[in-house]
Amino acid sequence: MSRFSNGKYSTLVPYTPGEQPQNRKYIKLNTNESPFPASGKAFDAAREELHRLQLYPDPDCTELCKTAAKELGVSENEIIFNNGSDETLNFAFMAFCDSEHGAVFPDITYGFYSVFAELNGVPYETKPLREDYTINADDYIGINKTVFIANPNAPTGIALPLSEIERIAASNPDNVVVIDEAYVDFGAQSAVSLTKKYDNLLVVQTFSKSRSLAGARLGFGVANPEIIKELNAIRFSTNPYNINRVTMAAGIGALRDTEYFERTKAQILKNRAYTVNGLKALGFEVLDSKTNFVFARTPKMSGLELYRILKEDKGILVRHFEKPRLSDFNRITIGAGYQMERLICEITNILK
Amino acid sequence: MSRFSNGKYSTLVPYTPGEQPQNRKYIKLNTNESPFPASGKAFDAAREELHRLQLYPDPDCTELCKTAAKELGVSENEIIFNNGSDETLNFAFMAFCDSEHGAVFPDITYGFYSVFAELNGVPYETKPLREDYTINADDYIGINKTVFIANPNAPTGIALPLSEIERIAASNPDNVVVIDEAYVDFGAQSAVSLTKKYDNLLVVQTFSKSRSLAGARLGFGVANPEIIKELNAIRFSTNPYNINRVTMAAGIGALRDTEYFERTKAQILKNRAYTVNGLKALGFEVLDSKTNFVFARTPKMSGLELYRILKEDKGILVRHFEKPRLSDFNRITIGAGYQMERLICEITNILK
Repeated sequence: MSRFSNGKYSTLVPYTPGEQPQNRKYIKLNTNESPFPASGKAFDAAREELHRLQLYPDPDCTELCKTAAKELGVSENEIIFNNGSDETLNFAFMAFCDSEHGAVFPDITYGFYSVFAELNGVPYETKPLREDYTINADDYIGINKTVFIANPNAPTGIALPLSEIERIAASNPDNVVVIDEAYVDFGAQSAVSLTKKYDNLLVVQTFSKSRSLAGARLGFGVANPEIIKELNAIRFSTNPYNINRVTMAAGIGALRDTEYFERTKAQILKNRAYTVNGLKALGFEVLDSKTNFVFARTPKMSGLELYRILKEDKGILVRHFEKPRLSDFNRITIGAGYQMERLICEITNILK
Repeated sequence: MSRFSNGKYSTLVPYTPGEQPQNRKYIKLNTNESPFPASGKAFDAAREELHRLQLYPDPDCTELCKTAAKELGVSENEIIFNNGSDETLNFAFMAFCDSEHGAVFPDITYGFYSVFAELNGVPYETKPLREDYTINADDYIGINKTVFIANPNAPTGIALPLSEIERIAASNPDNVVVIDEAYVDFGAQSAVSLTKKYDNLLVVQTFSKSRSLAGARLGFGVANPEIIKELNAIRFSTNPYNINRVTMAAGIGALRDTEYFERTKAQILKNRAYTVNGLKALGFEVLDSKTNFVFARTPKMSGLELYRILKEDKGILVRHFEKPRLSDFNRITIGAGYQMERLICEITNILK
């Protein structure tokens, strides 16, 4: 802290993004990026926009909202776009959590929720995952707090059935229930359709994973128009031009390329099945993933040791969390076929 | 407000961006954009990056910071990049203003300062501009508040000499003095070099005006490493990937194209001189602009009336502020030569 600090954020521990070492060329399976480039339609639309970089983007994201609304089966006033889904999540912490209600989320989940809570001075409670690393929906029934659930959860990859999400939303009618669906396209059920029925439900998604646009920064929220209006008031009070022209165009292009979206997603699912089978054949326990990563541990070696050998000796980056209940595991992004073959091959050698 | 609101932002009046009507093709002189496209080097670097959109950007903005630091003659740890300079300004309100010190800025200035103050619950005081619309530096001497000065100021376009900025910084050693230099490249003196001498000085700049990148969203702050570190702690607690890949590449390209930067800037200054002379010949009072816009009034017609006729009858958009001391004026962006010729021609006809 500088001597000019107002002290509001003196105890804040910022989020730690996955490492991006520049010293050598790794097989990068540590930040859940897509192994596929952006769709050709996204690429072309983005390139076209480079000719208009001198002009401010449309702060209302009119065309993008229209395209997404059509794709998702919601109205344009039921959607808000942000500079990555993190921004939508932060706005939800800003707008809906207060010292009376506070927030609640699982003890093991996306690491940014607690940072956002601290940032906004929101008290929060965490509910432990079950022994098998699943979320116990009962923990969130009628809890009278703002609920944040990543579905599928991270870094476990495990999904809650939609009926459980609905039960949580229905039992907390006076609190916002935020469902963070960053990974939903890889096999879980989206709660977007439930936003019509529950005016307290805010569903957050991203273009970073299944849309191959992590580098463009694009996320969105879907909810009742009243919730969207309130999030937009914050957006227009912080950064009305938060979505730049190129990202906006790329997002529209990606939404229009359903064929590419389906094809690349199917390939990830295929590569995931290969990886899960390969790891299990090597004696790994692999949690039931509905995401573009797997969370796995072997009784033969600590998670940290495997992470280190993969990184230092084999040039393969995976993500390790040196935390209680997680340190045995590693989170491995599902990449291209040749990358997963290489991973299984190297792990086979390591465990020999 | 939705019924889920925590009420923190219930009285917040969001910033109103300049209008972007889609109904017809206007000559757009209302949002201070550059009439020139991004530099060829920015374009090429951005296009190249479209091939890597599936990968997260570098959260440390290593190459961009390095390039900018070299260009500005500061160290890499004395600079922070954000998603537009608004984000840097908001972070400064978050980090350095509190209920004890509060903020101070001119009564007539960039409209976002009061929004940021309200957003962050920061009490603020405004100091009236002098009769001639200049800032009276004496108002800010030893004031013991966080100072926000746009230099040149908006929407007046008038600049303070660097000696006055230095006097303000030197007299408030225990408070951060933020100098918002969005328009500095068009004829004012930058305070960047003073950040070496005054550890309380934070200089904010943008790529939206003189770098022709409004559509890419890129701004930055320069200050003592302690201040930058604190702003980065907030950045990493809100949105570590706030600068997308394409914008980062475009920014690096723009910084490397000094020749284009100088050439387009010179053309704006030439077009500004033409516009000022033209308006003065028509009897306008034009404030002394050091920016890429002029702020002008005519005794022959109200500001609102001229704005309306230009927009509705002539298809020329300028920005009008229907506020005390400003409503006689219009703010006119300096565009391309043919646009300014058309403007002068149409105003000549209107006043006939």
